[in-house]
Amino acid sequence: MFAAAARADEDGYQLWLRYRPLPAAQAAAVPASAIVTLAPETPTVLAARTELQRALGGMLGRVPQAATAIRAGSVVLARSDGLPAGLPAELRGSLDRIGPEGYLLARTRMQGQDVFLITAKSDIGLLYGSFAWLRALQDGSAASLVRSPLVSNPALPLRVLNHWDNLDRSVERGYAGQSIWNWWELPAIVDPRYLDYARANASLGINGTVLNNVNAKAEVLSPAFIAKAAAVAKVLRPYGIRVFLSVRWSTPLDLRETATADPLDPAVAAWWRRKTEEIYRSIPDFGGFLVKANSEGQPGPQDYGRNHVDGANMLARALAPHGGTVMWRAFVYEPPESRKRKGLGDDPKHDRAAHAYDQFKPLDGKFDANVLVQVKNGAIDFQPREPFHPLFGAMPKTPLMMEFQITKEYLGFATHLAYLGPMYEETLRADTHVRGKGSTVAKVVDGSLHGYKLTGMAGVANIGSDRNWSGSHFDQANWYVYGRLAWNPALSSRDIAEEWTRMTFSNDADVVQPIVGMMMGSREAVVDYMTPMGLHHLMGRGHHYGPGPWVEGGPRADWTSVYYHRATKDGIGFDRTRRGSDAVSQYAPPVAAQFDDVKKTPEQFLLWFHHLPWDYTTQSGRPLWDELVHHYSRGVDYVRGMRRTWDGLEGRIDPERHAQVATFLAIQEKEAQWWRDGSIAYFQTFSGRPLPAGEALPPHALEYYESLEFPFAPGNG
Amino acid sequence: MFAAAARADEDGYQLWLRYRPLPAAQAAAVPASAIVTLAPETPTVLAARTELQRALGGMLGRVPQAATAIRAGSVVLARSDGLPAGLPAELRGSLDRIGPEGYLLARTRMQGQDVFLITAKSDIGLLYGSFAWLRALQDGSAASLVRSPLVSNPALPLRVLNHWDNLDRSVERGYAGQSIWNWWELPAIVDPRYLDYARANASLGINGTVLNNVNAKAEVLSPAFIAKAAAVAKVLRPYGIRVFLSVRWSTPLDLRETATADPLDPAVAAWWRRKTEEIYRSIPDFGGFLVKANSEGQPGPQDYGRNHVDGANMLARALAPHGGTVMWRAFVYEPPESRKRKGLGDDPKHDRAAHAYDQFKPLDGKFDANVLVQVKNGAIDFQPREPFHPLFGAMPKTPLMMEFQITKEYLGFATHLAYLGPMYEETLRADTHVRGKGSTVAKVVDGSLHGYKLTGMAGVANIGSDRNWSGSHFDQANWYVYGRLAWNPALSSRDIAEEWTRMTFSNDADVVQPIVGMMMGSREAVVDYMTPMGLHHLMGRGHHYGPGPWVEGGPRADWTSVYYHRATKDGIGFDRTRRGSDAVSQYAPPVAAQFDDVKKTPEQFLLWFHHLPWDYTTQSGRPLWDELVHHYSRGVDYVRGMRRTWDGLEGRIDPERHAQVATFLAIQEKEAQWWRDGSIAYFQTFSGRPLPAGEALPPHALEYYESLEFPFAPGNG
Repeated sequence: MFAAAARADEDGYQLWLRYRPLPAAQAAAVPASAIVTLAPETPTVLAARTELQRALGGMLGRVPQAATAIRAGSVVLARSDGLPAGLPAELRGSLDRIGPEGYLLARTRMQGQDVFLITAKSDIGLLYGSFAWLRALQDGSAASLVRSPLVSNPALPLRVLNHWDNLDRSVERGYAGQSIWNWWELPAIVDPRYLDYARANASLGINGTVLNNVNAKAEVLSPAFIAKAAAVAKVLRPYGIRVFLSVRWSTPLDLRETATADPLDPAVAAWWRRKTEEIYRSIPDFGGFLVKANSEGQPGPQDYGRNHVDGANMLARALAPHGGTVMWRAFVYEPPESRKRKGLGDDPKHDRAAHAYDQFKPLDGKFDANVLVQVKNGAIDFQPREPFHPLFGAMPKTPLMMEFQITKEYLGFATHLAYLGPMYEETLRADTHVRGKGSTVAKVVDGSLHGYKLTGMAGVANIGSDRNWSGSHFDQANWYVYGRLAWNPALSSRDIAEEWTRMTFSNDADVVQPIVGMMMGSREAVVDYMTPMGLHHLMGRGHHYGPGPWVEGGPRADWTSVYYHRATKDGIGFDRTRRGSDAVSQYAPPVAAQFDDVKKTPEQFLLWFHHLPWDYTTQSGRPLWDELVHHYSRGVDYVRGMRRTWDGLEGRIDPERHAQVATFLAIQEKEAQWWRDGSIAYFQTFSGRPLPAGEALPPHALEYYESLEFPFAPGNG
Repeated sequence: MFAAAARADEDGYQLWLRYRPLPAAQAAAVPASAIVTLAPETPTVLAARTELQRALGGMLGRVPQAATAIRAGSVVLARSDGLPAGLPAELRGSLDRIGPEGYLLARTRMQGQDVFLITAKSDIGLLYGSFAWLRALQDGSAASLVRSPLVSNPALPLRVLNHWDNLDRSVERGYAGQSIWNWWELPAIVDPRYLDYARANASLGINGTVLNNVNAKAEVLSPAFIAKAAAVAKVLRPYGIRVFLSVRWSTPLDLRETATADPLDPAVAAWWRRKTEEIYRSIPDFGGFLVKANSEGQPGPQDYGRNHVDGANMLARALAPHGGTVMWRAFVYEPPESRKRKGLGDDPKHDRAAHAYDQFKPLDGKFDANVLVQVKNGAIDFQPREPFHPLFGAMPKTPLMMEFQITKEYLGFATHLAYLGPMYEETLRADTHVRGKGSTVAKVVDGSLHGYKLTGMAGVANIGSDRNWSGSHFDQANWYVYGRLAWNPALSSRDIAEEWTRMTFSNDADVVQPIVGMMMGSREAVVDYMTPMGLHHLMGRGHHYGPGPWVEGGPRADWTSVYYHRATKDGIGFDRTRRGSDAVSQYAPPVAAQFDDVKKTPEQFLLWFHHLPWDYTTQSGRPLWDELVHHYSRGVDYVRGMRRTWDGLEGRIDPERHAQVATFLAIQEKEAQWWRDGSIAYFQTFSGRPLPAGEALPPHALEYYESLEFPFAPGNG
């Protein structure tokens, strides 16, 4: 069945761990006479050795045997406390730089033999080091390790995936099939895929996973589901990945085991203590709880007149004796109680973007030491582009965990090629100025700015049961870049794209360069054809598929598009300046001053902060309307260019993956065009201006775009 | 990545089309110097040739090239109208026996050369013949083809899968992941898996597929979904598989395109004509409609005072000009209008088992020629064992299509090993006696008894997005045996089990015999531990998982267990004799007389037809209660035996599949025990009798079994 076998090889299942044969010259340079383990054979050390054998077997065509005595050309996997004497001095010096999860890689001499050394203080460091060396072998950068040793340590202790996976196996905002967690079959049936999930995550350094949706069900804390989570935890444990659960605030009440869910009620606190102890009996290394409280209909402590601190600390005290953490989400958007009376939307100062700050800023310093407040990159909701969330830098006494979205809820689902590395990088490098220039979001998140001890990063996973994990081949890169940045937020997204491309597709420069080129501009293209120049929240209602700038009415003003774009005959944009909602004042003074001044505001955020007339003169000299249209068209053109580039790679990529990506790009071009056309048709009813010369009119009337319906869209709820 | 590669090979994806290398001696005997095509190279002929190349490449290690001139040792793929002169006389004679979809296989001489001939009157016959030869090569029976030519024709023109797949990709009663139809991505993205689906079905001779659930949504007939169905149809077409759709009776009304769904309203009929024309413009070989009307809340013609004939014929007339068929389901269970007044359950004569007959029998002869009435194998609903449906034989002027369930809604979901071949065979071989002895259900269904022209068989698919297609390796056998019996209802389920085992696992006799042995008794074991001696409908409410003999109350009496088992202190069973509901009278007199007489009723149907005291003496001499307990325990013991047998095959089966089956068997044993214990605990409250000597008491009190809840069970709705 040769055809099927070929397909199985390149169907995307193997991710970036393909371990294809190396060219002979490179293969000859790999020291792999044996794998010498100088460490107790714990499950983690065995996982490292097994991965090395699997990978070298694939790349070299022969599987190096395990050994305990150093020989020439061996790979030495050694705990630093088990290293023999007589190491070269410069290596000895480097050992001190290895942190608890870090590793050192070096081509060196041991006991008179030329070897490749992977060493670490911990077993998990050995596994991370093994994956790092294999990455270097795969992407062609291993030669540099001959010249100088490499030490690497993660910048953040918590590097976590958030699965928005429901207990019925559907996935909220998932576009890659069902949940990989087959809750029904667990714990009796443990899908071998969970092991490959662990390998893939460990290869990036991801060390935690929240198994279930933040819109949580009480049942996840039932004994049956704790047993299921424990079975997953058992598979992940050797790979250094701790399991967390999302919990519903009202769980004890929902299960009818308490009379209230008031966090200050002793019976409630006692229930959570007992439940936490029950979990730790099954999962001794349980990570802790992720909580979405008083947000989008979820219950929370405010239902009882308490605040987020009351809620988070009550849970934190249940977890603290076991070493667990609370990740309390700041994704809330009700104005604080004191301002609520004015009513939603009636108040011209009402601005959903400001509510999280208004609610959380006053709580700074009041959370227990094992609480992280988890903040989305921007203040609305994972839009293609948002300015950094004003909470970053505003809570110096509270560690803030970054929450990025990997699944592309607002960026074209799985179909659109949009590499999110530049988006993550843009946020991480944004300067809060709270302690002067250089106070980047990355430094807030990694704790270096405010001296947070506990720090972390969360990524909302794009992983599902689809054979290729992420629904599309290129979406694997978003999982990859999230993981790499969680290890080291200072990495460049371009370098990461190149690494990924080399491992996933090819090491040939004339394949790598075009692909990396496509990737690097792809997210900006999505911004252009969906939400250019600071526009945001313009998608279809509910499912978030396709353009919906006309969405209005319904239960909440701040769930509509018109709330955000505020287009009228006179202009467009959300005035968040001091004269408007004053959300700019939530930033540090230099940033606030910049965003408050239309002339200083970067054009990519123009309509986020300013309401401007249609004839406002933009930096290009074009009136705003013309510039907007230009952006929409430029986004579509970029996709057209990606298609040409990809077509040119035919024959350089295996046929199945090439064909699938080509099909997806064709859909993306069509949908990009649809976004442009529908958006222009709508906004033109306000601008009343003709399209600039050379710009094609939308082929349909606005009514057509407004009439489109998409029942059964995936990921919706 | 050797480990992953090995896994990809034996993860079940390849089904029975594994095409593993043959032993050298067998391989040497396969004529495969080239594949000579003496037929126009239509897509179907190319599919046959490609399959032969793929398969022989796998089995022989070299891919035979395509050729047009006969040479020694070639495989000749020839339309019978393209055969050269000078064929041996006995072959010439056999050609006449080939039907429109049939084929002839022969080792013969052509133009002086020794060749293997696959010939047929049609392209699809060539494809079926190719798969048949490959089956013979795989299961070791090919040698017999050297001795004499084989002609095979399907007994039924319609051999159809029914997918209960919803448009949101969930699958009602599906236990193998999501729908394989990725409706959201279609038509732009056509999963390569659809092609493998086509291959697998064509290998069995399945030639039709109903893509969506009988509980249908109106949207399936929207232009967007017709385009999606057309994209699937395009992939399946070369493999001889026509696409059908399930339609919701009220579709034109739901889409607000008519003011009523009354089948006698001319506007409604015109709508269906136009819609049908629209479908045929996209799918020229569209098969037709499957309809669930006036059943379980689905709308239907009775809502307008019309009957099933009015409804079916209206649709039939829309389809007739295009060659389409209506498959109108007889799965209804309201008493006919005339008897309805008495109210559900109050009437001691009320018997859900009798309603379909009561409603449909009077309509015999009134349906148009392109209508099939689709009847489930039994009168309730796919229970582990049911007597044959009394409609079989009762509608001599109406072709009845058999509906079997392949997915194991009531037989342990995907987890329990239950080979359904013996169940299908039991029904097909059952004797209706309507035209004297030998009037088997098979002869009703294949049309030979009553002279139906149009005949067919439907199987409710167990196929989903799971890598192994069916959720478990052994459930692939149920898809397989359904397809083989649809081609030839006279085949023995044991022979089919052996074929499947040889292709799926191994040709070694000491592997084949134990596996076939396990399979052959496995369905009876399920009957024993779930619903012995004619008991039925005792499962958990809604999800149908686990025992629920205590289920009572709720919206309908005939959705409860107590309605069916009728256990009291005095006895157990549903009295369907003339003194009871009189359902027995729906059978032909000899059958009715047999089932009416407790002494003549086969014990497997005892409590289906009779209400008997707990101390009734059964054929074994044991009192009924003791015999029931004996059956329950025997079922559990059988599973225990299967585990032992399977454990003994370790090392003879590839490790991944061996481990998965072993895990599933362990779960099955646990669940079989649970069924036994829960059922005994419940029924003992009525029988008041001790367990027979040597029988273990249930380890828990009845309240425990009754308290178990299963939220998030798969396939529920």
